[in-house]
Amino acid sequence: MQHEDPITCPVVLSVRAEDGPGIVAHLANAIVAAGGNIVNLGQHSDVTTQSFAARIEIAPGVDSDELVRRLDRVDRVLPIEYEVYTPRRARLVVACSSELHVLADILARVETGELNADVTTIISDRLDAVPIAERHGIPFVHVPANIDRAEEGRQFIAAVSATADPVVVLARYMRILPDFVADRYFGQMINIHHSFLPDFIGAKPYESAFHRGVKMVGATAHYVTPDLDEGPIIVQDVTAVSHADSVADLARRGRDIERTVLSRALRLHLEHRVMVIGTRTCVFD
Amino acid sequence: MQHEDPITCPVVLSVRAEDGPGIVAHLANAIVAAGGNIVNLGQHSDVTTQSFAARIEIAPGVDSDELVRRLDRVDRVLPIEYEVYTPRRARLVVACSSELHVLADILARVETGELNADVTTIISDRLDAVPIAERHGIPFVHVPANIDRAEEGRQFIAAVSATADPVVVLARYMRILPDFVADRYFGQMINIHHSFLPDFIGAKPYESAFHRGVKMVGATAHYVTPDLDEGPIIVQDVTAVSHADSVADLARRGRDIERTVLSRALRLHLEHRVMVIGTRTCVFD
Amino acid sequence: MQHEDPITCPVVLSVRAEDGPGIVAHLANAIVAAGGNIVNLGQHSDVTTQSFAARIEIAPGVDSDELVRRLDRVDRVLPIEYEVYTPRRARLVVACSSELHVLADILARVETGELNADVTTIISDRLDAVPIAERHGIPFVHVPANIDRAEEGRQFIAAVSATADPVVVLARYMRILPDFVADRYFGQMINIHHSFLPDFIGAKPYESAFHRGVKMVGATAHYVTPDLDEGPIIVQDVTAVSHADSVADLARRGRDIERTVLSRALRLHLEHRVMVIGTRTCVFD
Amino acid sequence: MQHEDPITCPVVLSVRAEDGPGIVAHLANAIVAAGGNIVNLGQHSDVTTQSFAARIEIAPGVDSDELVRRLDRVDRVLPIEYEVYTPRRARLVVACSSELHVLADILARVETGELNADVTTIISDRLDAVPIAERHGIPFVHVPANIDRAEEGRQFIAAVSATADPVVVLARYMRILPDFVADRYFGQMINIHHSFLPDFIGAKPYESAFHRGVKMVGATAHYVTPDLDEGPIIVQDVTAVSHADSVADLARRGRDIERTVLSRALRLHLEHRVMVIGTRTCVFD
Repeated sequence: MQHEDPITCPVVLSVRAEDGPGIVAHLANAIVAAGGNIVNLGQHSDVTTQSFAARIEIAPGVDSDELVRRLDRVDRVLPIEYEVYTPRRARLVVACSSELHVLADILARVETGELNADVTTIISDRLDAVPIAERHGIPFVHVPANIDRAEEGRQFIAAVSATADPVVVLARYMRILPDFVADRYFGQMINIHHSFLPDFIGAKPYESAFHRGVKMVGATAHYVTPDLDEGPIIVQDVTAVSHADSVADLARRGRDIERTVLSRALRLHLEHRVMVIGTRTCVFD
Repeated sequence: MQHEDPITCPVVLSVRAEDGPGIVAHLANAIVAAGGNIVNLGQHSDVTTQSFAARIEIAPGVDSDELVRRLDRVDRVLPIEYEVYTPRRARLVVACSSELHVLADILARVETGELNADVTTIISDRLDAVPIAERHGIPFVHVPANIDRAEEGRQFIAAVSATADPVVVLARYMRILPDFVADRYFGQMINIHHSFLPDFIGAKPYESAFHRGVKMVGATAHYVTPDLDEGPIIVQDVTAVSHADSVADLARRGRDIERTVLSRALRLHLEHRVMVIGTRTCVFD
Repeated sequence: MQHEDPITCPVVLSVRAEDGPGIVAHLANAIVAAGGNIVNLGQHSDVTTQSFAARIEIAPGVDSDELVRRLDRVDRVLPIEYEVYTPRRARLVVACSSELHVLADILARVETGELNADVTTIISDRLDAVPIAERHGIPFVHVPANIDRAEEGRQFIAAVSATADPVVVLARYMRILPDFVADRYFGQMINIHHSFLPDFIGAKPYESAFHRGVKMVGATAHYVTPDLDEGPIIVQDVTAVSHADSVADLARRGRDIERTVLSRALRLHLEHRVMVIGTRTCVFD
Repeated sequence: MQHEDPITCPVVLSVRAEDGPGIVAHLANAIVAAGGNIVNLGQHSDVTTQSFAARIEIAPGVDSDELVRRLDRVDRVLPIEYEVYTPRRARLVVACSSELHVLADILARVETGELNADVTTIISDRLDAVPIAERHGIPFVHVPANIDRAEEGRQFIAAVSATADPVVVLARYMRILPDFVADRYFGQMINIHHSFLPDFIGAKPYESAFHRGVKMVGATAHYVTPDLDEGPIIVQDVTAVSHADSVADLARRGRDIERTVLSRALRLHLEHRVMVIGTRTCVFD
């Protein structure tokens, strides 16, 4: 397995700004001045919103403090939002209900070292995940569904808050959280929806897909916003199905897509490859 | 190119019935009695509708008249709808508007012999397709958009009616036909919709896809029914897109999918591989 | 999760024979005589080898003993090889080396009930899998690589033999087994090869793929035969890669395909959906 | 259709260099000095070859002459190979044999304006393409196969040379050209091979794919080099096939991939999105 090595890993600079002439030159000059060498540069100018986004990998050895000083100087001339990021092990809080395949997949990837992260807490409105949580030695928090919705949201936040700087994964979590939860973790909470959104919004997409007679089913990983199933999309994929597939067959074929889509989205998020611009995302993969 | 040879081509028997025990045995015995040998058998029992569908390829040499007599005898015991079909060259009526790539693709496939069909008429609400119709020596019928909708429907039918036993292809035809046209050609009229239905129903799917920030765009070939974009789906496919793609880029990537999806659906239809069951299709490919 | 229920699950009849007229009729009549109703029938006549293969799902309630008597009677007229099969929980022996993602994926699917099977033994030439075996409470057998090759084969067989009627999975097992092992488990041992075979046969496919500059990488699940990487293919799939991907990136993208391809092949095998005909397989999915 | 408009189209700067610190800064500063604004920047540092490649789209309005002066100044400090390119209509010479679907597809895309190019000459060792050439009013040159191979190469070059600055497309051209032809048009001659290379090199890939029993067939567009089917790959894609597909079915399914792969490669090439680095390509899409 590839274990990320902080010494050989590149430093990642991500930048957002209003688009305008000369931004790349300013950034590139700042990097040179800090002794850095650009290994990889992804850039996007969004014409609809006049916004600029870039993700720049800089070879290890760059003087990070000097880089920050230089970027602050750029910011005075040309307002930019930036982040200098060195890979580190992430902390995941995973919420699930009765379908556990996405949770099990995340744990398998943690176990083999593929995902540079630990699962610190498992949250659920049900008890199905208790055995799997115990086997992996992970704290389990039960947030019951039959309580006041605001209270449910507060208990959810309390469970997440035990983890510093968490990434929250809704891994087939079938509860709709109050808006204040979605708002609090905006950009840090990823949901996997079991359809190719905006197709089949809501609770029973495989049933709907069956009745519509579609020839492919899909899955969508997106950031959670107060608008259900409307958040910025990170990854989507589909797989072929046929008339011979029952609803249960669609669900089975879909599970492979759900797993893969969620884990790709998670990796992209953890490597700071995703930037939200309005209702859309830039993904530098 | 593979030119279908009526002497070496299998005879195709397609059957629909209410599901019940012994149908396959009855059919297989009838085929044996007519001196036929089954080359390929696709069968589906639809549990939702309790309906049975089968497509059976029988080696050439079967006594077709005897087969029909035997199947009629089966029908008295166990009501079946059946069709015995020998491949023949189809006659296509293609309707289009200003986007001509699907039309051009169909014509290219006719030209190379890939599609066992002729285009007998091109119908359009616009004049963009006139040069391409002339180059291929195909009659062009202008059905203008600025007339009474019922009259438009009647002119459309008149243009189609010049062809005996036509298959009608709506190849990015941007008009919504009156219900009586859809009803008249039900099961014989195929539309290509430029989205992965039911996503982005309606007129501007690539714009909608862009604003929603989806990561794939698709196309859907379906039989036309009075309910816009709701007809039984024959083929769907998608292709990956990214944040860097403009609406025009989505349309460009989508065109390759539209072409391929439509021509696959057309081949399946012409080879009697598609059976409509309620709002869904069985596709024996 | 869908747990297979022996009472509601269909009985599966799989048949292989030399192709000839009337086979389907004979089989269908035998099923009717045993009080069975065909739910699903997949059939293939292979013109190259003149062989017939079919997989028939019969609704529960069929008299299995009578079915066998009737099929034996068919066999006297028209020699057939057949098997009547009722779903049951399978026993998997998984062999692996240092890459554990396929093993971890199988265990996750067993844990969530997606795979109707238990892993009874983990075999490895290395010790990397010991912790994961312990966590899941599965016996681990070390078959070291630095011994005589025939002895290695015998130890491998001894480890497998502790399981009755096993299905053997080579889950990125990097040893080449002696021919007598492959022969012994022919049709019961599945390998996942980390390339789109016959591309990049051998030990380092991702390196080779990188140097050739391919734009997709893939994986192949196949039955193991004495000819390395030449066995009948069950499932293949690919994923897009780009010039920006290093060898490690190709391996990472490939892992998702390996997992999915292997688990699809395993399900198909366990549900008796795969039949080997010469160097090829029929897959009735 | 999108007709490229020279006034609103971006200027494209493509750069290749030995990798080293500060290249991006030098380029970005040169663009700023020429009054340019970067719209889109794709960059790749190839660690194996220590080479740098970039494709930069600059908003229209940049002073191209000043840009060239500035880049020449950069070149003195830090040796770079660069090209400043404004979109223009390309001239295609298409060679084919008896399979005409790729040729027909190119012509359909020229006809609808999708491909910003004209086909100036059709070359063939056979006469099958004569009617299609006549219908589209394109000069046809017959280079017979039964002559001395060097002479065949010279006649091929003579036919191509009638076009200034041609892009040569081998659209299922079944002749192997002498090395001096491949060398002469290196980087300007694209072949479509009807397999997922390096699988099934050579003349009959669909037959080989059938006998190997693969579950997908593919196609590969690559630059032509003297080493048959070994040139740098531009685009690859695959499509699923099954045991039920004959060799003719594989060829039919493959044709859709061949067409799409070739036209994607052609577009990428014409928009200067492909750079060859050794045996591999960078594709900035």
